[in-house]
Amino acid sequence: MVVTEPDPELPPPPLELIPAGVEVVEVSATPTDDQVARAQVLYIWDHRFADLGALLRRATDVRWVHAASVGVNRLLCPELAAVTLTNSRGVFDVPIAEWVIAAVLSHVKGLADSWSLQRERRWQYRTTGRLAGRRAAVVGSGSIGRAVAERLMRLDVDVTLVGRTASADPRFGTVRASTELVSVAAEVDLLVLAAPLTPATTALVGSEVLDALGPSGFLVNVGRGPTVVEADLVDALRSGAIAGAALDVFEVEPLPAGSPLWSIPNVLVSPHMSGDYVGFEVDMMRVFTDNLARWLRGEPLHNIVDPAVGYVPQ
Amino acid sequence: MVVTEPDPELPPPPLELIPAGVEVVEVSATPTDDQVARAQVLYIWDHRFADLGALLRRATDVRWVHAASVGVNRLLCPELAAVTLTNSRGVFDVPIAEWVIAAVLSHVKGLADSWSLQRERRWQYRTTGRLAGRRAAVVGSGSIGRAVAERLMRLDVDVTLVGRTASADPRFGTVRASTELVSVAAEVDLLVLAAPLTPATTALVGSEVLDALGPSGFLVNVGRGPTVVEADLVDALRSGAIAGAALDVFEVEPLPAGSPLWSIPNVLVSPHMSGDYVGFEVDMMRVFTDNLARWLRGEPLHNIVDPAVGYVPQ
Repeated sequence: MVVTEPDPELPPPPLELIPAGVEVVEVSATPTDDQVARAQVLYIWDHRFADLGALLRRATDVRWVHAASVGVNRLLCPELAAVTLTNSRGVFDVPIAEWVIAAVLSHVKGLADSWSLQRERRWQYRTTGRLAGRRAAVVGSGSIGRAVAERLMRLDVDVTLVGRTASADPRFGTVRASTELVSVAAEVDLLVLAAPLTPATTALVGSEVLDALGPSGFLVNVGRGPTVVEADLVDALRSGAIAGAALDVFEVEPLPAGSPLWSIPNVLVSPHMSGDYVGFEVDMMRVFTDNLARWLRGEPLHNIVDPAVGYVPQ
Repeated sequence: MVVTEPDPELPPPPLELIPAGVEVVEVSATPTDDQVARAQVLYIWDHRFADLGALLRRATDVRWVHAASVGVNRLLCPELAAVTLTNSRGVFDVPIAEWVIAAVLSHVKGLADSWSLQRERRWQYRTTGRLAGRRAAVVGSGSIGRAVAERLMRLDVDVTLVGRTASADPRFGTVRASTELVSVAAEVDLLVLAAPLTPATTALVGSEVLDALGPSGFLVNVGRGPTVVEADLVDALRSGAIAGAALDVFEVEPLPAGSPLWSIPNVLVSPHMSGDYVGFEVDMMRVFTDNLARWLRGEPLHNIVDPAVGYVPQ
């Protein structure tokens, strides 16, 4: 059973990739009783679907739920206790990391200003910044955060990885705990959020962290909107407490037309698409069909989410 | 003697970095006879200065000319036969390479479209591209071209370096000759020009190379404008023969207000600033003062340009 609502903009799932022996029922966000009656596997295609508990109470034969996303915060519910939840970890790692590099380097090199001046046909020479040698913190020690950190390091940025708890990592050295984020933010110019939405990451970045990041600081959020207190971010951007931000996720999506974020200088508003490349739906479906083959063979599934923390433990 | 005209936008040279024992005369593009009378060293601060031959005929004691630029095409003249010419190779390598990555990833991730939609407060989800796995050719095997190629490789791009002649390189493998550029362009998605302006690179990129680059191809020019036949580029962009371009240099600079390049979609017009970072004038002056110390000690200078080819041989 594949749930494909409510986002009309999403590419359709390439259902033809599912093996012929498997019966597929494509359903809306509110399927009929007949549709849910015999489903054993549920594939949530649309990351905006948010009513999994109600659906699982009706689809009592479901034993496995797979999410076509990495963040599963909208899906967490008590009904998952009797079900295995897997996600699509890996598909977005490099694309999101590249989007972060694009956003950061565009800020450093003033490309938004270049495009603005270009629209007015104005040749206005400026000096801009350099990325190499800067310090960055990446919040989120999962596969996306690591891909971001890896690419920043390859461009000679000094990167600190921030996780739920402190640890030591062979590639990234000391991973700092997110409880220390204020002091970490004070040490860096660039703060990248690539964390799942959990109780520990909700409202993690407010005025205290932003003030610590400082007037040359740049914030990137490719994780989940509620990790940032948006009102505090608006204040920090308007007051110059930080220099700018690139945001792919927001407290409310789509970002309401009345949000001040649309028009604050040095802010990039991107419609939750940082990881979505042409053809991603095929790779996404392959993550599912690989797991489906394991399921049909009775083997352990990959990418099992721990509902207690809300992500796949490393 | 330091020539600081004609560009009024350039930061002033930090002359205080020149050792106290050296007499410094700061002159305009047309110095008086009295000013040129005793000069032995000439520092061309402004890369737009283009009348070196006339100046050297008057400043007959000058034995060394240093350029605050990497490209020295405007300075080449017969009068240089009796003079050593050095340039500022190295200062711009990483900044320009970062600008290229910014421009390329902005194109791949559709950031110009994101900013356009943002101005209209439109939340419009799209899928974009990936950089990793693409193929690129970098024309120019000097220190800037190598820095660009290096950073593209670090982001998992398959890079071919193109030089004046074919050779083998320990880091970049087979360096192709620029005479083969049509066939090289046919093999890549991304063509980056980081070459000095010489007879071999003038009008190197015209309709034949652009057609070979093809409809998904992207052109970046951080070298010199006349390497590209601009009329052919305009045609290729308008017809969709290539997908887009990021241009920091032009046949005529500043780019005339009437140029169609200002308003063609998927084109970034940047006012010859890709390498100029905040504080670059200090690093630039240090390249000169390091060489000046060698000169005062009677040691060989670094970064000596071969006027026959127009750049510092590797």
